[in-house]
Amino acid sequence: MAESIKFAVIGGGSWATAIAKMLCVNLTEISWYMRNDAAIEHIKTYKHNPNYLSSVEFDTKKLKLTNDINEAIAYADYIIFAIPSAFLDGELEKLTVSLENKIIFSAIKGIVPETSLIVGEHFHVKYDIPYYNIGVITGPCHAEEVAMERLSYLTIACGDEEKAKVVAKNLSGNYIKTKITDDIIGTEYAAMLKNIYAIAAGMAHGLGYGDNFQSVLMSNGIREMKKFIKKVHKMKRNINDSAYLGDLLVTGYSVFSRNRMFGNMIGKGYTVKAAMMEMSMVAEGYYAVKSAYKLNQGYGAKTPIIDAVYNILYDGQDAKTVFKKLTDKLD
Amino acid sequence: MAESIKFAVIGGGSWATAIAKMLCVNLTEISWYMRNDAAIEHIKTYKHNPNYLSSVEFDTKKLKLTNDINEAIAYADYIIFAIPSAFLDGELEKLTVSLENKIIFSAIKGIVPETSLIVGEHFHVKYDIPYYNIGVITGPCHAEEVAMERLSYLTIACGDEEKAKVVAKNLSGNYIKTKITDDIIGTEYAAMLKNIYAIAAGMAHGLGYGDNFQSVLMSNGIREMKKFIKKVHKMKRNINDSAYLGDLLVTGYSVFSRNRMFGNMIGKGYTVKAAMMEMSMVAEGYYAVKSAYKLNQGYGAKTPIIDAVYNILYDGQDAKTVFKKLTDKLD
Repeated sequence: MAESIKFAVIGGGSWATAIAKMLCVNLTEISWYMRNDAAIEHIKTYKHNPNYLSSVEFDTKKLKLTNDINEAIAYADYIIFAIPSAFLDGELEKLTVSLENKIIFSAIKGIVPETSLIVGEHFHVKYDIPYYNIGVITGPCHAEEVAMERLSYLTIACGDEEKAKVVAKNLSGNYIKTKITDDIIGTEYAAMLKNIYAIAAGMAHGLGYGDNFQSVLMSNGIREMKKFIKKVHKMKRNINDSAYLGDLLVTGYSVFSRNRMFGNMIGKGYTVKAAMMEMSMVAEGYYAVKSAYKLNQGYGAKTPIIDAVYNILYDGQDAKTVFKKLTDKLD
Repeated sequence: MAESIKFAVIGGGSWATAIAKMLCVNLTEISWYMRNDAAIEHIKTYKHNPNYLSSVEFDTKKLKLTNDINEAIAYADYIIFAIPSAFLDGELEKLTVSLENKIIFSAIKGIVPETSLIVGEHFHVKYDIPYYNIGVITGPCHAEEVAMERLSYLTIACGDEEKAKVVAKNLSGNYIKTKITDDIIGTEYAAMLKNIYAIAAGMAHGLGYGDNFQSVLMSNGIREMKKFIKKVHKMKRNINDSAYLGDLLVTGYSVFSRNRMFGNMIGKGYTVKAAMMEMSMVAEGYYAVKSAYKLNQGYGAKTPIIDAVYNILYDGQDAKTVFKKLTDKLD
């Protein structure tokens, strides 16, 4: 029976909290790992996460909260990782229990900086997890709207359709609709690349470009994303599906997106260092663009937007000048 | 020489004013027709349109302003129509001069209510204008941003490439980039259909759906638009080009869009009549959805969003109920 399948959520941030909320609708028990002891105690006592989506009330009887990642992983069949990609490798180094036969779903939208791999590839290459045990949970989805129980659509990707169905079923609810796909590579690259376009959107805004240009940038962005992903993994996909275009739009048009905010500060003249300090948060796209740019040295896809963001963030080129040149490459 | 080519702009609204501004960058003289005598006098005296984009200052020596549409049309080789589609037929009934050998460009985004045709088709069917003398000027472009001289991209469509180039050249400038295409049917249908999706976006907002759903709606919208246009006129086109997707986004995500505003009011519970009176402006999508829905009875494209908007606006169906059902048809 489905009830006997055990899930663990790894992470204490807003997306992890949203996923825990969705799972609790369908399951009588989940394991939930987070590093922060104080947050665990707070949830146990007050039924909500003090730091993220604090309006969400949990039925704490359902939660096996733990600050020991090994305990969470030992418990579960399905493990959903929802921590910033920059922290993933550090967390995985704590593992003493085996990941063998575990089914790993990534709800992380980014590149693992240490290996420059997307999360699925990282698990495959570094931990020998076979691809049929790896999946992706992707948006378009702001965690904040899940907290408010506003209708959201998730795409669950896995090479093994049955596993995608299990995850989809356990995340679905009144306000969560799910669809499944076997495009684990494409959906994960889309989730990572969209953060780069969100940075570009923020930069454009910071530089004073308006809504007309923004729409041209997104229109070029989705075409660029299609070319890039096609080079990485050619298969039949509709790039305008929600998991690709929808995810790009919800991030690129969101004033709450960390990546867009980061880009906006750069556009307004902050240095990369100053913008990062000011935000005190990780902008996933910062790592993503380095990796995407380097990868594309091999692929040779025409990616003027990725190139522009890379040149500004890593080559110290002037944002205004780079964007002026970029505008001639868009149409 | 290009300088000898004569342009007329038909209309006194914001888009007509923006087009007049763009043309004045490249031409020493244009003819500009508007019905409103007081506006003409105001422009002559104060150098700006009192009602629309009033920050734009004109070099009035370049403007042959007239309240006589026949005078404007007699003067020009290229005539750019930029009036609401609902007023087009009434204006054309005033014609005593011939449209023979005139090159007609439509900057109107909608359906002519009297004939249920897009503007190009209307000129072709009712006035025998050959398609090689018909063109389309399309966005993504808010006129307000042209007034502010913010970078904007226009697509100029004409079956006769030379004519598209002439118009593109005379609209281009420091802050206007243009591209040309021969897809006059597709670009015009896109410009018209996007207003329906903007109404749907507004309805969703008015009903309390959030950004996650909005991105799913737009992602489904562009897929639906592609199917619809393919039925109308099958040719090789990239639906993610700025003239299609970009135009959809700039309208669907704009809080200033009349169509989105109209939809928002319906979503909040206004009747169609009350919303129209409140706005005292024409929402092009209101006419567009009727025509698109009827057309599609013949085409049979799967268009759940168009159907939903039609059912709400013309069949008096409850917006909340219709959207609830619609959410099951999207993915």
